[in-house]
Amino acid sequence: MTGKLFVIGTGPGNPDQMTPEARTAVSEATEFYGYGPYLDRLELRVDQRRLASDNREELDRASTALRAAASGATVCVVSGGDPGVFAMAAAVCEAIDNGPEEWRAVDLTVLPGITAMLAVAARVGAPLGHDFCTISLSDNLKPWNIIENRLLCAARAGFVIALYNPISKARPWQLGTAFDLLRSELPFATPVIFGRAAGRPDERITVQQLGEADAAIADMATCVIIGSSETKIIARDTLSDLVYTPRFISGGNR
Amino acid sequence: MTGKLFVIGTGPGNPDQMTPEARTAVSEATEFYGYGPYLDRLELRVDQRRLASDNREELDRASTALRAAASGATVCVVSGGDPGVFAMAAAVCEAIDNGPEEWRAVDLTVLPGITAMLAVAARVGAPLGHDFCTISLSDNLKPWNIIENRLLCAARAGFVIALYNPISKARPWQLGTAFDLLRSELPFATPVIFGRAAGRPDERITVQQLGEADAAIADMATCVIIGSSETKIIARDTLSDLVYTPRFISGGNR
Repeated sequence: MTGKLFVIGTGPGNPDQMTPEARTAVSEATEFYGYGPYLDRLELRVDQRRLASDNREELDRASTALRAAASGATVCVVSGGDPGVFAMAAAVCEAIDNGPEEWRAVDLTVLPGITAMLAVAARVGAPLGHDFCTISLSDNLKPWNIIENRLLCAARAGFVIALYNPISKARPWQLGTAFDLLRSELPFATPVIFGRAAGRPDERITVQQLGEADAAIADMATCVIIGSSETKIIARDTLSDLVYTPRFISGGNR
Repeated sequence: MTGKLFVIGTGPGNPDQMTPEARTAVSEATEFYGYGPYLDRLELRVDQRRLASDNREELDRASTALRAAASGATVCVVSGGDPGVFAMAAAVCEAIDNGPEEWRAVDLTVLPGITAMLAVAARVGAPLGHDFCTISLSDNLKPWNIIENRLLCAARAGFVIALYNPISKARPWQLGTAFDLLRSELPFATPVIFGRAAGRPDERITVQQLGEADAAIADMATCVIIGSSETKIIARDTLSDLVYTPRFISGGNR
């Protein structure tokens, strides 16, 4: 007998940024698997089981959830942000790919969520208004030389760059090194947005110039957006500056 | 007297994918500006004004909305998907940048939404599970040689590629040319996902191999996701195939 497996995203943490379809899945499921702070964003009922695990245990968590769903439970795997962006949907697929045949028959539904870069971008204007790329700076996931190559390709292509997992205790130097590398390709005044906890009470949004951007501002909960050479700042007297990347690059057919 | 300007995204069209905070903005505003089909997604009250304009008139629409907000109205500018991804937030910022001083004092709130690539990705698994980029294929926005360079850089960097505005009556050949270009860089079997109207009743999701991908499948409402050389397909007997990009690339510190 096969149950059901939802993989949902809570959005960046503001409950009003979680979609109604994700909320419906939460009310339907009876077992919840995820990183503790993400599970804390849900208001579970007493008849719903909360199975928190650590940040680094994604594949184990996915396998346990699949096992429960395969034996008939209605299960919800919970990510922060969007489950498809550096989050649990890929871990669940990986577990299915390498797991027993019966996991392929599990009724799997992935429900999208607001990922951090969209929430951060909205708070400052429209820095992702033209082509952009999204890179995880975690060198647990891939060798550092691949990350360097991707950063250089991205800058040379003219992409705005959104960085996830910019820094942690185990990865203290990577963001500073990334800034150094990008300084060789992009203008001094390129806007860098540090967006921490967007939409939450402890939100902190800082905009600096790439030439003097300070990696120490970032922490694990920060999404960093680095502009392209097209990205502009609009100074406002009474309100905070806006940052946007224009929709047009001259030479188009407009 | 300054009113208020919300810039919201409806998500891809399924009402259950629109965030509660966007809904609250809709109930608060009295004037709505947007492309007609996006405004049709809202259930406006009789006391709310609906000001639809055409797809190509973003800057005019933004200016009209800013003028209304600057003179005291509570205004809502409506995008499909996320307002910050190839949508109205950048047009509003551009209008402010080039408009009269008083527009800088308008109380502007951008509210994020589920952008098409996240909704499409969720329907097939986790193709955006690792680093990716997002490119508009519209050569109204930029010269075609810049688009070609970005596609090549993206493939060489190993990014999964999400394409917006892949095709239109005025742009019939661009997607096919993009596929040709990427065939020179990526394996024949690289998965290509055509995601049309994700989450809506007329949804159509098709997965092909890059080597034989048929651009004619796409229309204006399609988001195309092209895998990297790491992207994998999981065949399932009774259910549709899953597509995912693994979280790890060998050589990381795992």
